[in-house]
Amino acid sequence: MRDVSIIGIGQTSVGEHWDKSLRELAVASVRAALADAGQEKADALYVGNMLAGAVTRQEHLGALIADFAGMRGIEAVAVETACGSGGGALRIGYQAVASGIHQTVIVCGVEKMTDSINCATTAALAMAADADFEVSQGVSFVAINALLMQRYMYEYGLKHEDFAPFAINAHRNAMNNPNAMFHFPLTTQQFDSARMIADPINLLDSSPIADGSASVILCPTEMAKGRGIRIRGSAIATDSVALHDRHELLFLQAAHDSAQRAYAQAGVTPGDIDLFELHDAFTIMSALSLEASGFAERGRAVRLAQEGSIGLEGRIPISIMGGLKGRGHPVGATGVYQIVELVQQLRGEAGDNQVDCRLGMAQNIGGSGATVTTHILEAPD
Amino acid sequence: MRDVSIIGIGQTSVGEHWDKSLRELAVASVRAALADAGQEKADALYVGNMLAGAVTRQEHLGALIADFAGMRGIEAVAVETACGSGGGALRIGYQAVASGIHQTVIVCGVEKMTDSINCATTAALAMAADADFEVSQGVSFVAINALLMQRYMYEYGLKHEDFAPFAINAHRNAMNNPNAMFHFPLTTQQFDSARMIADPINLLDSSPIADGSASVILCPTEMAKGRGIRIRGSAIATDSVALHDRHELLFLQAAHDSAQRAYAQAGVTPGDIDLFELHDAFTIMSALSLEASGFAERGRAVRLAQEGSIGLEGRIPISIMGGLKGRGHPVGATGVYQIVELVQQLRGEAGDNQVDCRLGMAQNIGGSGATVTTHILEAPD
Repeated sequence: MRDVSIIGIGQTSVGEHWDKSLRELAVASVRAALADAGQEKADALYVGNMLAGAVTRQEHLGALIADFAGMRGIEAVAVETACGSGGGALRIGYQAVASGIHQTVIVCGVEKMTDSINCATTAALAMAADADFEVSQGVSFVAINALLMQRYMYEYGLKHEDFAPFAINAHRNAMNNPNAMFHFPLTTQQFDSARMIADPINLLDSSPIADGSASVILCPTEMAKGRGIRIRGSAIATDSVALHDRHELLFLQAAHDSAQRAYAQAGVTPGDIDLFELHDAFTIMSALSLEASGFAERGRAVRLAQEGSIGLEGRIPISIMGGLKGRGHPVGATGVYQIVELVQQLRGEAGDNQVDCRLGMAQNIGGSGATVTTHILEAPD
Repeated sequence: MRDVSIIGIGQTSVGEHWDKSLRELAVASVRAALADAGQEKADALYVGNMLAGAVTRQEHLGALIADFAGMRGIEAVAVETACGSGGGALRIGYQAVASGIHQTVIVCGVEKMTDSINCATTAALAMAADADFEVSQGVSFVAINALLMQRYMYEYGLKHEDFAPFAINAHRNAMNNPNAMFHFPLTTQQFDSARMIADPINLLDSSPIADGSASVILCPTEMAKGRGIRIRGSAIATDSVALHDRHELLFLQAAHDSAQRAYAQAGVTPGDIDLFELHDAFTIMSALSLEASGFAERGRAVRLAQEGSIGLEGRIPISIMGGLKGRGHPVGATGVYQIVELVQQLRGEAGDNQVDCRLGMAQNIGGSGATVTTHILEAPD
């Protein structure tokens, strides 16, 4: 099995792109990543996307994007693991290079969520949950996360405002990311008094619906000539899709399992990780991810945030360029944005948000924790 | 890169399964394939599916099927290449084993198409075409194939009834396949006088909408202990999604390219292939696939069929267990059904349809030829 590195990154800004189609967003990030890698084309394309069928009525994104990005004919498929589709596509691209089958591959995450009518996007996001046993009862995807947050607050004696540091940190870090959707700071008072979505999740617990695309270029490390960012660990784990089937409601077993597999592959522990780009779709998911991945004891992640450990100067910075909350969450693209931002940090190109780092970890979650992909990246010496 | 073999196959019957949900169909074929392989579980699951989001409002099939098939926790993703999603999933599963990352993987194709209202399935199938430049003009997926057939008939001076041998052969072979949807023979007169769908494609040029699931188990050949069916060639190629962007309308470039890559990997030529399980979604696709893959000169595939060369006793048998036309075409599952049927033949377990064979080829097409996956399988000595 070959060692794999990332040699190119590209992204569009995240936001409401009324003037750009799904394919235009994807082509923009693919071409930017190829340019960054100094390449004209690649051997294969893996597209992470969840909603194009439901929102844009377009499937078949592999061939479509390959063609419009100027690479008609290459191998191309789309990969879907709900809101974690970007991470899923990276995992498949990693396999393609590790296997020796392809030399250079593109992993592109893309999503266009704002261009819909009649709540089509909200309804489509519920496809990440169990259609027969959850959604048929009338629950939305936010409501499923609200059940988790309600129980977490009850079990650990927390108030809603205790979760404020996650959103405040994300918005603060997004201020210096020109590609982020939001560029305004938050206060605890603003956070706690925002409009309710599904009790106890309010507007500022929630990452925004957005359009965007991010891409990375992978190749064998030996081809990267010392300038690539090595993929030291790569893993996917799964859990039940429906919450009511979980063994433990407040422990993300798949996040734990995929993190442990990635640590084992890389030969590291949580203590070695300098940055953790986690899946803060809702503030409760930040807490659960930190705990499942070994950065906090159960029920203690909120305290970790309150102590300032998740800030850029803290022990384990998260939402480094704004996270899902501040940068925006174009679902199928998010997992690739996380990787692009980690690479910026590991290259020392993160500007005012730069953290002193050598090992970074990204974790992308599908559904309420049913598919979790974890990648560990390392800077060159 | 490791050599990969197929050590288990499973399938449900193809038809209108009103009493079975999407996940129940998938679990049935996965468990059957595991039982056939003599295994309780596998390390990873790759699901080929196109329409679950649009028709059943369920995405996230990887985690869902892994859990309900008794393998909660394993790596699992869904792969989408439109109507060729089953072949795409097999290609990804092949990479996972070839890379050394996984020892045993399941590739499951599943589709539930009949349980929809208001033509949802017909509208969803159009997502295989270009939403912005084809479907927005009002064209259906059948209509796109009708444009190809009309032009083919014009260019080569053919009548509609000339295509009858493809449908007659498929229905004849389906008679002996207990899992096929149709068990009745066709005559040329019946074929030519069937109800029109999109001129010149009538009902009997078309494969039927259906529910079904098929699965295969892959492992390294060295683990198969001489009883596996080797994957000698595996390739995906792409073309423009929209017909009007093709360089040559009547030549399936991606079918040609993926077949050539598979031949090269296997070190064989079309003359070495004993069976060709092609993608006969419409009679015109049978003709175009035979030509692009090197079994007939351009414009001569219909003659090949008329001469009897595609029958079980012919030079290159196709639609061996009924094909898409006779077995049925549950789109995302079809590519895996093709592989299951080739394995039956290469094991000598094809009953009254058994052909004397050593090398078989399967070709699965997404859209009107924009993504084509070709696999070459070999029987053990």
